[in-house]
Amino acid sequence: MKTVTTKEGVRHLVGEWKKASLTVGFVPTMGYFHQGHLSLMDECRKLADRVIVSLFVNPSQFGPNEDLASYPRDIERDLRLAGEHGVDAIFMPDEGEMYPRNHRTWVIVEDLTERLCGGSRPGHFRGVATVVAKLFNIVQPDVALFGQKDFQQLQVIRQMAKDLDMPVKIVGCPIVREKDGLAMSSRNAYLSEEERRSALCLYRALTLARRLVLEKGVTSCLDIQKAMREEIESFPFTKIDYIFTGDPESLQPLERVRSPLLVALAVFVGTTRLIDNMLI
Amino acid sequence: MKTVTTKEGVRHLVGEWKKASLTVGFVPTMGYFHQGHLSLMDECRKLADRVIVSLFVNPSQFGPNEDLASYPRDIERDLRLAGEHGVDAIFMPDEGEMYPRNHRTWVIVEDLTERLCGGSRPGHFRGVATVVAKLFNIVQPDVALFGQKDFQQLQVIRQMAKDLDMPVKIVGCPIVREKDGLAMSSRNAYLSEEERRSALCLYRALTLARRLVLEKGVTSCLDIQKAMREEIESFPFTKIDYIFTGDPESLQPLERVRSPLLVALAVFVGTTRLIDNMLI
Repeated sequence: MKTVTTKEGVRHLVGEWKKASLTVGFVPTMGYFHQGHLSLMDECRKLADRVIVSLFVNPSQFGPNEDLASYPRDIERDLRLAGEHGVDAIFMPDEGEMYPRNHRTWVIVEDLTERLCGGSRPGHFRGVATVVAKLFNIVQPDVALFGQKDFQQLQVIRQMAKDLDMPVKIVGCPIVREKDGLAMSSRNAYLSEEERRSALCLYRALTLARRLVLEKGVTSCLDIQKAMREEIESFPFTKIDYIFTGDPESLQPLERVRSPLLVALAVFVGTTRLIDNMLI
Repeated sequence: MKTVTTKEGVRHLVGEWKKASLTVGFVPTMGYFHQGHLSLMDECRKLADRVIVSLFVNPSQFGPNEDLASYPRDIERDLRLAGEHGVDAIFMPDEGEMYPRNHRTWVIVEDLTERLCGGSRPGHFRGVATVVAKLFNIVQPDVALFGQKDFQQLQVIRQMAKDLDMPVKIVGCPIVREKDGLAMSSRNAYLSEEERRSALCLYRALTLARRLVLEKGVTSCLDIQKAMREEIESFPFTKIDYIFTGDPESLQPLERVRSPLLVALAVFVGTTRLIDNMLI
């Protein structure tokens, strides 16, 4: 596996692959790999001749009071895991390589970014869309893979790629969960043992919503949200950021249940903000 | 010369060229070709193996009270001229091809777009940057050419291409002028005979500024602006939109003359808004 730190290095490497008529699959990440990341690499391996993974904790998608500085990092372990999962190259730029002085250009996706995480984290999706646009231009992949845990992010990137005519296929991959149901996340590393138990509230609330819709025939989204809220609040250390019930395409909220229904939520467990979602 | 109306058609054609290891040069235009456009095509011919020109009057760069509906069009003449200048393909999409329903993504370049035309035409450069980003992704050129009459546009596109790591070289080409000095523009077609005479005020004001700096040693930008203002106002039917004196890189205004100095202006002649500029 090759480790590349410059844009020029990536262009050269990918240029060689393209000259040999090999297709290129891309998995953008912020590192600290868990099974979710690794499943993206495995899936990418199936979809393309060569797999390149980027590892860059993108400062422009963090708010001023968020966890940029403390975001978990373990590059040695990440490199080993990527190698074991058949990754051909890792792109690990530093901040100066990605955001030289006087960076002034931003990609904004309207409407889709107003609610859910976009509502709680102003500027977050502007940072995400911009860095992904840059990475696509550097790597020029045929296909790029994203996890569905960040459901809104996936929709924002799909919309951006379509609207800007980016020549890349966007593939969303299923959420990978711990045995008890907790969605895999690099931020789970922040949790104390007690908080880890409370973190299960997200999955519990989602499965409750699913039961209410599919088994109890509940049709009011407000009723679903209320039940989820009570479930979450029965766990200690929890503070709800948002609960969303709506259309998975437009990310518009719904009052009545419709199929498919996206149920998504963000909850602070202690000081750690966790997200999860389910399509019902 | 091939005429292509779909993005897919362009991708196919350019794909064939790339397979044959041919380089691709690109000239984005809104049509109604004049010598300025044709000089870009000629220059492009020298820089790349294949030349593709887009002809699309981009609605997203026009304000609600601007001249989108009346923008001059003569496709038959444009096709003939492009053919005569060795263009290999023209991309002429309709609005639905470029902006399907639910287009929500915009490219914004901060700072550079605040003054000059960006100040007078809010949203203009957002529309320009977005359509050029789209066209670059569709055409995937090695090199793209822009006229220096739209000096701010050229700087905005340079900045965007750099910031988003677009794999394309941006080339600016000199302003082409009528014999009396009027900068070539598709919008010159709007001018009555009398207005056409007044339209010379822009070039006259610019050459006056140059004389003041180079021959009279004037160092105050305000004095230069004042003299330009008086020159322009001596012509009938004129109304100044802006006069700018400043740094050509950052587009920050200057109080004292520095080299190089960008002098740029926009003037309404009758209802027609004309722009011009000079590097001193």
